[in-house]
Amino acid sequence: MIPRYSRPDMVAIWSPEAKFRIWYEIEAHACDAQAELGVIPKANAEAVWKAKDAEFDVARIDEIEAVTKHDVIAFLTHLAEHIGSDDARFVHQGMTSSDVLDTTLNVQLVRAADILLAGMDRVLEALKTRAHEHKDTVRIGRSHGIHAEPTTMGLTFARFYAEMARGRARLVNAREEIATGAISGAVGTFANIDPFVEEHVCKQLGLKPEPISTQVIPRDRHAMFFATLGVIASSIENIATEVRHMQRTEVLEAEEFFSKGQKGSSAMPHKRNPVLTENLTGLARLVRMSVIPALENVTLWHERDISHSSVERAIGPDTTITLDFALHRLAGVVEKLVIYPDNMLANMNKFRGLVMSQRVLLALTQAGVSREDSYRLVQRNAMKVWEKGADFKTELLADPEVTAALSPAEIEEKFDLGYHTKHVDTIFKRVFGDS
Amino acid sequence: MIPRYSRPDMVAIWSPEAKFRIWYEIEAHACDAQAELGVIPKANAEAVWKAKDAEFDVARIDEIEAVTKHDVIAFLTHLAEHIGSDDARFVHQGMTSSDVLDTTLNVQLVRAADILLAGMDRVLEALKTRAHEHKDTVRIGRSHGIHAEPTTMGLTFARFYAEMARGRARLVNAREEIATGAISGAVGTFANIDPFVEEHVCKQLGLKPEPISTQVIPRDRHAMFFATLGVIASSIENIATEVRHMQRTEVLEAEEFFSKGQKGSSAMPHKRNPVLTENLTGLARLVRMSVIPALENVTLWHERDISHSSVERAIGPDTTITLDFALHRLAGVVEKLVIYPDNMLANMNKFRGLVMSQRVLLALTQAGVSREDSYRLVQRNAMKVWEKGADFKTELLADPEVTAALSPAEIEEKFDLGYHTKHVDTIFKRVFGDS
Amino acid sequence: MIPRYSRPDMVAIWSPEAKFRIWYEIEAHACDAQAELGVIPKANAEAVWKAKDAEFDVARIDEIEAVTKHDVIAFLTHLAEHIGSDDARFVHQGMTSSDVLDTTLNVQLVRAADILLAGMDRVLEALKTRAHEHKDTVRIGRSHGIHAEPTTMGLTFARFYAEMARGRARLVNAREEIATGAISGAVGTFANIDPFVEEHVCKQLGLKPEPISTQVIPRDRHAMFFATLGVIASSIENIATEVRHMQRTEVLEAEEFFSKGQKGSSAMPHKRNPVLTENLTGLARLVRMSVIPALENVTLWHERDISHSSVERAIGPDTTITLDFALHRLAGVVEKLVIYPDNMLANMNKFRGLVMSQRVLLALTQAGVSREDSYRLVQRNAMKVWEKGADFKTELLADPEVTAALSPAEIEEKFDLGYHTKHVDTIFKRVFGDS
Amino acid sequence: MIPRYSRPDMVAIWSPEAKFRIWYEIEAHACDAQAELGVIPKANAEAVWKAKDAEFDVARIDEIEAVTKHDVIAFLTHLAEHIGSDDARFVHQGMTSSDVLDTTLNVQLVRAADILLAGMDRVLEALKTRAHEHKDTVRIGRSHGIHAEPTTMGLTFARFYAEMARGRARLVNAREEIATGAISGAVGTFANIDPFVEEHVCKQLGLKPEPISTQVIPRDRHAMFFATLGVIASSIENIATEVRHMQRTEVLEAEEFFSKGQKGSSAMPHKRNPVLTENLTGLARLVRMSVIPALENVTLWHERDISHSSVERAIGPDTTITLDFALHRLAGVVEKLVIYPDNMLANMNKFRGLVMSQRVLLALTQAGVSREDSYRLVQRNAMKVWEKGADFKTELLADPEVTAALSPAEIEEKFDLGYHTKHVDTIFKRVFGDS
Repeated sequence: MIPRYSRPDMVAIWSPEAKFRIWYEIEAHACDAQAELGVIPKANAEAVWKAKDAEFDVARIDEIEAVTKHDVIAFLTHLAEHIGSDDARFVHQGMTSSDVLDTTLNVQLVRAADILLAGMDRVLEALKTRAHEHKDTVRIGRSHGIHAEPTTMGLTFARFYAEMARGRARLVNAREEIATGAISGAVGTFANIDPFVEEHVCKQLGLKPEPISTQVIPRDRHAMFFATLGVIASSIENIATEVRHMQRTEVLEAEEFFSKGQKGSSAMPHKRNPVLTENLTGLARLVRMSVIPALENVTLWHERDISHSSVERAIGPDTTITLDFALHRLAGVVEKLVIYPDNMLANMNKFRGLVMSQRVLLALTQAGVSREDSYRLVQRNAMKVWEKGADFKTELLADPEVTAALSPAEIEEKFDLGYHTKHVDTIFKRVFGDS
Repeated sequence: MIPRYSRPDMVAIWSPEAKFRIWYEIEAHACDAQAELGVIPKANAEAVWKAKDAEFDVARIDEIEAVTKHDVIAFLTHLAEHIGSDDARFVHQGMTSSDVLDTTLNVQLVRAADILLAGMDRVLEALKTRAHEHKDTVRIGRSHGIHAEPTTMGLTFARFYAEMARGRARLVNAREEIATGAISGAVGTFANIDPFVEEHVCKQLGLKPEPISTQVIPRDRHAMFFATLGVIASSIENIATEVRHMQRTEVLEAEEFFSKGQKGSSAMPHKRNPVLTENLTGLARLVRMSVIPALENVTLWHERDISHSSVERAIGPDTTITLDFALHRLAGVVEKLVIYPDNMLANMNKFRGLVMSQRVLLALTQAGVSREDSYRLVQRNAMKVWEKGADFKTELLADPEVTAALSPAEIEEKFDLGYHTKHVDTIFKRVFGDS
Repeated sequence: MIPRYSRPDMVAIWSPEAKFRIWYEIEAHACDAQAELGVIPKANAEAVWKAKDAEFDVARIDEIEAVTKHDVIAFLTHLAEHIGSDDARFVHQGMTSSDVLDTTLNVQLVRAADILLAGMDRVLEALKTRAHEHKDTVRIGRSHGIHAEPTTMGLTFARFYAEMARGRARLVNAREEIATGAISGAVGTFANIDPFVEEHVCKQLGLKPEPISTQVIPRDRHAMFFATLGVIASSIENIATEVRHMQRTEVLEAEEFFSKGQKGSSAMPHKRNPVLTENLTGLARLVRMSVIPALENVTLWHERDISHSSVERAIGPDTTITLDFALHRLAGVVEKLVIYPDNMLANMNKFRGLVMSQRVLLALTQAGVSREDSYRLVQRNAMKVWEKGADFKTELLADPEVTAALSPAEIEEKFDLGYHTKHVDTIFKRVFGDS
Repeated sequence: MIPRYSRPDMVAIWSPEAKFRIWYEIEAHACDAQAELGVIPKANAEAVWKAKDAEFDVARIDEIEAVTKHDVIAFLTHLAEHIGSDDARFVHQGMTSSDVLDTTLNVQLVRAADILLAGMDRVLEALKTRAHEHKDTVRIGRSHGIHAEPTTMGLTFARFYAEMARGRARLVNAREEIATGAISGAVGTFANIDPFVEEHVCKQLGLKPEPISTQVIPRDRHAMFFATLGVIASSIENIATEVRHMQRTEVLEAEEFFSKGQKGSSAMPHKRNPVLTENLTGLARLVRMSVIPALENVTLWHERDISHSSVERAIGPDTTITLDFALHRLAGVVEKLVIYPDNMLANMNKFRGLVMSQRVLLALTQAGVSREDSYRLVQRNAMKVWEKGADFKTELLADPEVTAALSPAEIEEKFDLGYHTKHVDTIFKRVFGDS
């Protein structure tokens, strides 16, 4: 976790305090269930709730762990210091450490997912707002970095919206997948603990019981979770890259917002660099790098080994914290992105009329010229624009082979921008519905 | 694609013949829609279907492409050779190559997904059958490779079933995500083609129209697809690793089926190596390696660049073919896996009674011995078994501190295997339902 | 392996014919050594060479393998068909299949490395030539996609040369690492075969004996090999990305060579897309994707398992073939890249004089103005250029706070391009030496 | 960075204090060089050294950065607070932030490499010691997890030594590659600063001047560095996996050292789990996960973008800290690994004599039996051992077809263990030389 790329809400989920609080809740709820089953005395179960508002002493737990070399035992020992060793003696009965650890991890991932979903909502809202604001702001569409045909800035925002909305739906799925808990004992057979305890604890924590666990909750769930975050990160990079391209000196169709006090460079004060989106490009790599180890974590030996644990200690917090930060940074970039419609028009007209060649090609075909001939005619005139800076429309009007097929009015009509934007409403309706 | 790791049905999806057939269908359906719109003559649209049963000549298309350096133009030229250049002149009108290419890729991925789902069904069926067959076959559960508590072979199969079933559900989602098509023209604005064409073509091909495309269908869909395959591959590795462990000489609780003519090793004829599951471990790596490039493919410059294309030419076929092969190889392994229940019992009893220590620990606690003392008592006797080969139950019965808390009958009862298997039915019901 | 992204020389290395030829040579040389040791009769060893010019029948070997399910036994059986089963009976004596397979793989990788080195030499030669050709072709340097200070096209080529030269040196190391062979028997103890056989075979094949093998040659060597290819691929992407940026419509400082018959797009004939470098971007991803499975291959169970094998069957050929193709494609791009020096100058002057702001800042500081004040003065005038299209030099000359510190002549001097290119020779000497 | 997986020496390298100290040294040495060139007054250069023993106030620098949003400017402002703004005004003259940042990163990576090399030396020393200690401790070699032929524990340690030694040599190369510095100004042209400054600073810091930089030091160097760490991590996993296998209940040929106070499990006190090596398996994944983003960092736009920076802020510290911790954890495991030679023998004899089948096969062939027949004879008797628990030697002696070819004495001789260990010295000499 890099402090500068973190937000406190997400960081808090991964604090020792938050972790021990969840451990405590699992143990306390489990005692309730055990008492209901008659396995342990009701009084002891109730006594565990004495620590409900206690603050667990992380340093003290670490101290005990240094001796026992076992984190859950250390916590239970500390818990006994809060509620008395007599009342504490039924705590954790029939459970194994992983019942606590794995269920806790999933609670944390679910909470992390909720924060990420909120971040995605902010990004979506920003994209939607900017899409409608620039629905009709014409700019040139580019394939291969080369001018193709006109599109609008609103469509650019709309497609990022659609992509991010897909990412959101995927995260909802991944959250659902990870929202399971297990209290199934040493190898998952419930030999020492009744399945009712698992059901009760899960219900209290908003989880579903893991249908079959083996001390650990199966790691394909976590793999899917991190893979999903990786796809979302890639979409962030996709949006960031568009902004970086738009801000390049020669294009300058948009700029990241540049606050007054900010210095772009110690050496070149005029520079306004797209540093936020470049940073997002890097952050996307950091989120993605968790995917492979998460996939490698799926294979555990027999009922479990602990190879996954160190990986999760790192990627659990780091990946969710980084993605959360990236989503909010992205939202800020989109919300405040400075758009330059005039530059968009100027860029589009750089090669005078050439972007309309597709329409002309089509018109020639429809006028009965063969496909091959149409292609040749358009190419011939296009090359004059490309190589000599001629005006495409002028050249077409002067080409007898062209005018033999198309009237001057027909040629003129091919250069109307409205032709390209006529279906923007249709697309917006597909993306945003009727809103 | 490695021939030895491929099955013909999946290979066929990626053949040039299959690809050109889909291209043809897209073009023909598009002509129908254009005719319905009145954009092109109905007669010309109908004429395109003359090639319905034609076999396209791949070598001829390659020959044309060698000149034009453009695959779609080469195909269209060849198509004209089938239906006549006059009738062919409205084909592809208003479309761009990517309309054909991207829609085709998604058709192929959908078909690949269907084959993969069938493969997963075969694996699931095998796991279910074997789970029920060995529902009560007791074996020792192992955590960290070390004996823990008893479980059953049926539970092992059942957890793999549950994991594979989750993978299947994910693939259904991924298939749904990839089942889109786009006929939206040069930069996705429908400037040159009515959205109705896209709707018609997609409907005919079993796809949904891509809500917003930009010449290309957005690659986050494909990233999610390959990420999902990567998770499934990891689950295959998980199952394969279990088999490999079971087959090790010292464990020998199961073996891959060993056909009569097969030679395990040129040098050591007695060896029966788990080569299929070792192979599956490697194949899982091959499937997983497509995930990162698929994620890197998401970011395209502006409305599109073609960097994704070469990646997809490789991972499209290779990943689906490898995973398909792996699924069927895995199904075969599971179906024919030779299980050795006697060895399972022998292994469990290797450290005489020690695996019951958890029960004894619990019993002592419940009998009023403090947690710390119970732990000490169990550990003391356990170490005698571990270090001197003593029998755990015998030692316990001879330990006055233990017998002060537990009667001989109570101690005896702790060594009953039924204790560990009593919830197997519950778990099976969770995993398989009432079937 | 994708045919369109392959070159025949590299493909040939991985053909079954080439593989069996190496197998044969290993067996024949091993027989020589065994005969020299007196382990087998000299006549039998000599007899093996009868097949020296034989063409092994791949289909026949496959046929035998279908029965034996063992590739080396299949080959040996076929070899016996060539030299007679009597003479063949000492072939492979004391060896294990992996002795043949692993040594062969390394021979193939060494040969592949040699071809790759030749490809890198071609790229280096092209970069060097173009660097010298455009040593003094001034263009604007860009950081963050934003104009910074002038540099030269020659320096761009020179830095790619330096990077590729580092890649070459790394590949020489990786080739050296992989150039080992092992003929050490079942678990590498030489129990059944004298180390002299290994020494002899390796010497004949240009390899070093693997100091300690365990049936297999340790896979960290291969991991390093593929990791090195991954770094080289990333450098290819780096160069490709520069070309793609240069070719963008708004920049147009260079273009990939565009042959006469080539069609850029079926719809927009004027477009010249940087498809080769976009393709290289994708190919780089394909090469890189082998790195992770190669790293995962390092861990084998005990003396060996066969999980690495399927991975290597894929990434061995695919990665080397793809990288070889990419290197030659890149060389072609560099050799024929069309450079537009006029556009470079036009781009540099887009923001009139602003790129010289760094020099002015420095001059003010050196003239005794405080760092903070200098920054403020430069920023003030720079913003007029940026926002109003003013000329930077004119503004500076009109700013009394500036002219209080710098004379008009001093200001003029700051706009001399020679200032920026004065160390180009120094850098070239560092990169290319005195050549 | 996960505190529990870190060692203070490596953590210190990445502290803000250490970073600012290097920044300071670069600036101070640069001033010396500038003074020597006559660019700035000698007195000012000397004055910078007033801060030689100063402790930079990280909180204060952060405070300034919060305003300027530029870290290097914040540092320089703080430095001026130490040495006076008048003396400070020539500091950083002609330099750009990246001159400081990139050179600093490489100094940190070089220092990290030195610590890692020391860690590897500790691992190597441990492996060497244990190899010699168990040079002749016979154990069964296993391929595919199945018993093959005898080897020795010393050979196991020796091959890990050889692998780690290769890793060390690679890291020496990677350290060499990363040991460069750049003080070349805004786009690397030395327009504003003489190359002598770079030469001087690099010399003082133990670096070589980067031959050609472009504001940034090219990232292929860093990619190679992290790729190398990834290979080393994979070798750690390889060793860790061997230990995990040896410690499995059924094998128990070795155990991680188990200290007195340590509790293996809260539920099963007898369990001694290989948690350190399982942890190392996870840590290896964490180290490896930096490889892909490091490769993705190689491609920067034009002379630089800043996408690499956030990646390096994470993987710079995290990867080196994790690998450093892993190396020392591994060294501890190897140093204290408890070896059970008796269990090794017991395991080897599990299938009575079967491991000698390869020798018998060879003997039959050498006695003139055809390869196919020899194989059949060995297989026939081996199957009796495998299936019925017979003794291999006894069966062979009772098989007339076998005794027709081999005398009883010859058969007896095939079961001599010395046969398998006769070349251990040869191999040790290859690996350790004459030491």
